[in-house]
Amino acid sequence: MSEINQQITLNSRPDGWVVQENFKLVDGQIPEIGEGEILTRNLFMSVDPYMRSRMNDAKSYVPPFQIGEVLQAGVVGEVVTSQNPKFNEGDVVVGMLGWENYSKSDGEGLLTVERGPVPLSYYLGVLGMPGMTAYAGLVGVADVQAGETVFVSAASGAVGSVVGQIAKIMGCAVVGCAGSDDKVDFLVNELGFDRAFNYKTCGSIARKIAELCPKGIDVNFENVGGEIMEAALWNMRDFGRIAVCGMISNYNDKEMTPGPRGMGIIIQRRLKIQGFIVSDNPGLNMEFIQKAVGWLAEGKLKYRETVTDGLENAPSAFIGMLKGENFGKQIVKIA
Amino acid sequence: MSEINQQITLNSRPDGWVVQENFKLVDGQIPEIGEGEILTRNLFMSVDPYMRSRMNDAKSYVPPFQIGEVLQAGVVGEVVTSQNPKFNEGDVVVGMLGWENYSKSDGEGLLTVERGPVPLSYYLGVLGMPGMTAYAGLVGVADVQAGETVFVSAASGAVGSVVGQIAKIMGCAVVGCAGSDDKVDFLVNELGFDRAFNYKTCGSIARKIAELCPKGIDVNFENVGGEIMEAALWNMRDFGRIAVCGMISNYNDKEMTPGPRGMGIIIQRRLKIQGFIVSDNPGLNMEFIQKAVGWLAEGKLKYRETVTDGLENAPSAFIGMLKGENFGKQIVKIA
Repeated sequence: MSEINQQITLNSRPDGWVVQENFKLVDGQIPEIGEGEILTRNLFMSVDPYMRSRMNDAKSYVPPFQIGEVLQAGVVGEVVTSQNPKFNEGDVVVGMLGWENYSKSDGEGLLTVERGPVPLSYYLGVLGMPGMTAYAGLVGVADVQAGETVFVSAASGAVGSVVGQIAKIMGCAVVGCAGSDDKVDFLVNELGFDRAFNYKTCGSIARKIAELCPKGIDVNFENVGGEIMEAALWNMRDFGRIAVCGMISNYNDKEMTPGPRGMGIIIQRRLKIQGFIVSDNPGLNMEFIQKAVGWLAEGKLKYRETVTDGLENAPSAFIGMLKGENFGKQIVKIA
Repeated sequence: MSEINQQITLNSRPDGWVVQENFKLVDGQIPEIGEGEILTRNLFMSVDPYMRSRMNDAKSYVPPFQIGEVLQAGVVGEVVTSQNPKFNEGDVVVGMLGWENYSKSDGEGLLTVERGPVPLSYYLGVLGMPGMTAYAGLVGVADVQAGETVFVSAASGAVGSVVGQIAKIMGCAVVGCAGSDDKVDFLVNELGFDRAFNYKTCGSIARKIAELCPKGIDVNFENVGGEIMEAALWNMRDFGRIAVCGMISNYNDKEMTPGPRGMGIIIQRRLKIQGFIVSDNPGLNMEFIQKAVGWLAEGKLKYRETVTDGLENAPSAFIGMLKGENFGKQIVKIA
């Protein structure tokens, strides 16, 4: 066991876009554990859009990161020492731990997962928070029905790619948008989306959606906000639902951006716009995991990761993900 | 019976704010009726915010008014001739008829109402579409619960005044805003709102709402849109509901106005924003009428009208209502 525990702390709060200087790589100690605690050697960590809001000093559904403290992420780790009867040496656990080589935990909120046919990093993506979020929004919030048209933004991302595939499995017409031609090709040719487009090169996004969703949108799974959300709103059908999962386009704004123009359409078409987070309905998460393991085995659910190697590269991986440079779920391999 | 049938037609579509020149007063004929039809002598008509959208040539949940044709409104009329077995001479009916002294109808969509203790004009307000809209939004869309905090904009209006009173009857804390000190006084001292404020003179609307709703808003009944909607949004509690009934602040805009800033709060606080119209759930409307007649009799539900005399003054009454000059439900007395 290396004597050094590399850690990444919040060095300063971002002013607009996140930059490298907001992070600091420090050499910490490997923690001593006490009664009821475990020590994990961390294998993979996740970088996710929601972390951006935790870098601000603002009240939200998760508390802000504190300057000088080790950042947190979804982590897959191996138990190296345990003084907690629920965990044994060699167990693999998933949960919120630090951006670091070794973490101490009392085990609260950690799940033990099987080493098996599924790569362990999947528990940070398709079988983890992003996959569960896709299911919670599509099934729990939007109550999607077979035969409906589903539009998803950031469709090749960790959440969006699962949204589109679940919607296809459920018998919907699925249209997505993404930020490169490669991603668009992936959506249609690998994930089985009915249609997809590159929002950076398509001209009017609203007109493009109208062309690809000729009957309009029944369910918009919103990951992006901004002009993509506006364009989707204008294409909603009567009684359409917008499940609001994220607004990544706004996370780095210094000033608050206005919402979509033409909000009166909410009344005219009797739309429902609803925000949610994955922990609101835990029962749905278990339901999803059971289904998703089957879908993965049958090849109905495909999954793609971008794996960045080395804890020291986690800040770049995070910044790149916010800019849309990753392809599929962004993972950092720690060990 | 006068030989002339005064009528008001759509002379031109408004470009921004509605003006007198958009209307034309014409002398029409009293219609001849045929088999299955009735002729009504119109007593009262209603002017309502939703009519503004029908003056545009745009698809909505109601078709646009046509240039040169008689405008439509909710009307209370007396049957003067009937060749329809469902209606007798002397019956009082309510429904969509013309801005005119006499209307011909096949009876479709007309309800026969009782002459009784309630003034007939009430069927255009507290017992009509505005009252039913209040109930549909508060109960059907927002699913309001006893003990919650309800905020309503345009609170002294035809819909808002009923929203606040129903919420009080259901055991909520009720806060409203209106556009004059007289209206604010009316809300608190006559209608029994817990607190109210004048949005034109209060300074920051968001800070005023925060002061008057210290626990935040559980249900926002939105009639206005624009900066009032934004201020309410920022004050919503976790799992709050915004029932979107109207956006009167935007109806005269030439350009599409942006939506509220800070829409990310929808996710953080897991809000539901839902548009609706009164006809979506007819069962609720009957439920409301039964309850409201009782509440009126018991004095729990109070009602105020502004009555403008003369069909020829209907355009001014409509324009004044859009500017907030009326106090309570705006009615035009035709005969």
